[in-house]
Amino acid sequence: MKTKDKIIHTSLKLFNERGERQITTNHIAAELGISPGNLYYHFSNKQEIIRSIFDLYVAQLESSFRPHADQRLSLEHLTQYLDASFELMWRFRFMYANLLELLARDAELEQKYQALQLELANWSRDILFQLRESRFLSGDDATMAELADSVKFIIGAWIGYQSAQLKGGEITKPRLYQGVLKILFTLRPYFTEESQNIYQDLHQHYVKCAERSE
Amino acid sequence: MKTKDKIIHTSLKLFNERGERQITTNHIAAELGISPGNLYYHFSNKQEIIRSIFDLYVAQLESSFRPHADQRLSLEHLTQYLDASFELMWRFRFMYANLLELLARDAELEQKYQALQLELANWSRDILFQLRESRFLSGDDATMAELADSVKFIIGAWIGYQSAQLKGGEITKPRLYQGVLKILFTLRPYFTEESQNIYQDLHQHYVKCAERSE
Repeated sequence: MKTKDKIIHTSLKLFNERGERQITTNHIAAELGISPGNLYYHFSNKQEIIRSIFDLYVAQLESSFRPHADQRLSLEHLTQYLDASFELMWRFRFMYANLLELLARDAELEQKYQALQLELANWSRDILFQLRESRFLSGDDATMAELADSVKFIIGAWIGYQSAQLKGGEITKPRLYQGVLKILFTLRPYFTEESQNIYQDLHQHYVKCAERSE
Repeated sequence: MKTKDKIIHTSLKLFNERGERQITTNHIAAELGISPGNLYYHFSNKQEIIRSIFDLYVAQLESSFRPHADQRLSLEHLTQYLDASFELMWRFRFMYANLLELLARDAELEQKYQALQLELANWSRDILFQLRESRFLSGDDATMAELADSVKFIIGAWIGYQSAQLKGGEITKPRLYQGVLKILFTLRPYFTEESQNIYQDLHQHYVKCAERSE
């Protein structure tokens, strides 16, 4: 791995584990065993590292949630989407937890974030329409669009909200699996008759994930 | 109104309108036309004012959401709950928007907040059970409890999430009415056959509120 990428991944790890506010570029250089000068050769400040982490986040979002045209979805796809929701929240948890602060601090990041939100809104809606097309869900267009917005809201808001409920604000894997279960609960009334057993299997699977990761 | 109460209400107004971070005790004293010394006679710092605002918030929550035992709910009650959700979000919007920051800064406030969350979880569950008892909603106990948790999540997380979607983070009344509509959408699948027209009326009412307040 190139030094630049190592800096990005190590920063992400430290931000997640110890909180972005606590971590300076010196901590990052020390963790990597490189000199601060070497770090500054790649990034002129912490804010630039955060922007690179955001680019990584966008790339993972695209590969997980950008739907293919006219795709026929299988149970595997549905599980992939739910797993990706969890992975995304877990992998970038410091960003979800500090979102407003990070955006207030950096107008360029704010602009990127808001442009991404519009894309995400479209992707979520397209995925919900495909889930209806593939007979997992049923409901009119307006309902599917509102449901897509609810799912996007849960993923986007879950960590910030859960952090406030927890002493010290530290987020745990079971809490994030509760978020996946919340998505499932929100979709449940729209699962078709023929997909009821699929709903049950998914629900049991993620209840187990939440327990296993305690 | 006593000076102490005036300080609390003026601070709340300034925090909401200009952001808590921008406002110092000097701004508050100037807005009231009193000397900083007079303000310090009542509060030793801004943090103490924020705690008093929190007490006001708890009092409004109690008077709006603490359910009476064995209450038979009417349409009026349901509208009151939805109106109260809006009022609460609007009236204390700076707190919802800065929640994690406020809690990270003040361990006493964090403790109060988390104790309140447990109470709120009970109240929400009791209200949902009463809504079922009064034949507005139907569903088993586990479903009603999860639904109560969803409603609590929407009220608690809506402003933080919406602020991130808006350039400059400024929250508007229509955005908050969208939150009320999100609560209604989440409850919709559980409205009983006999309450379908009530759902439709409530939905139209809050769509109009969202448009009127633009």
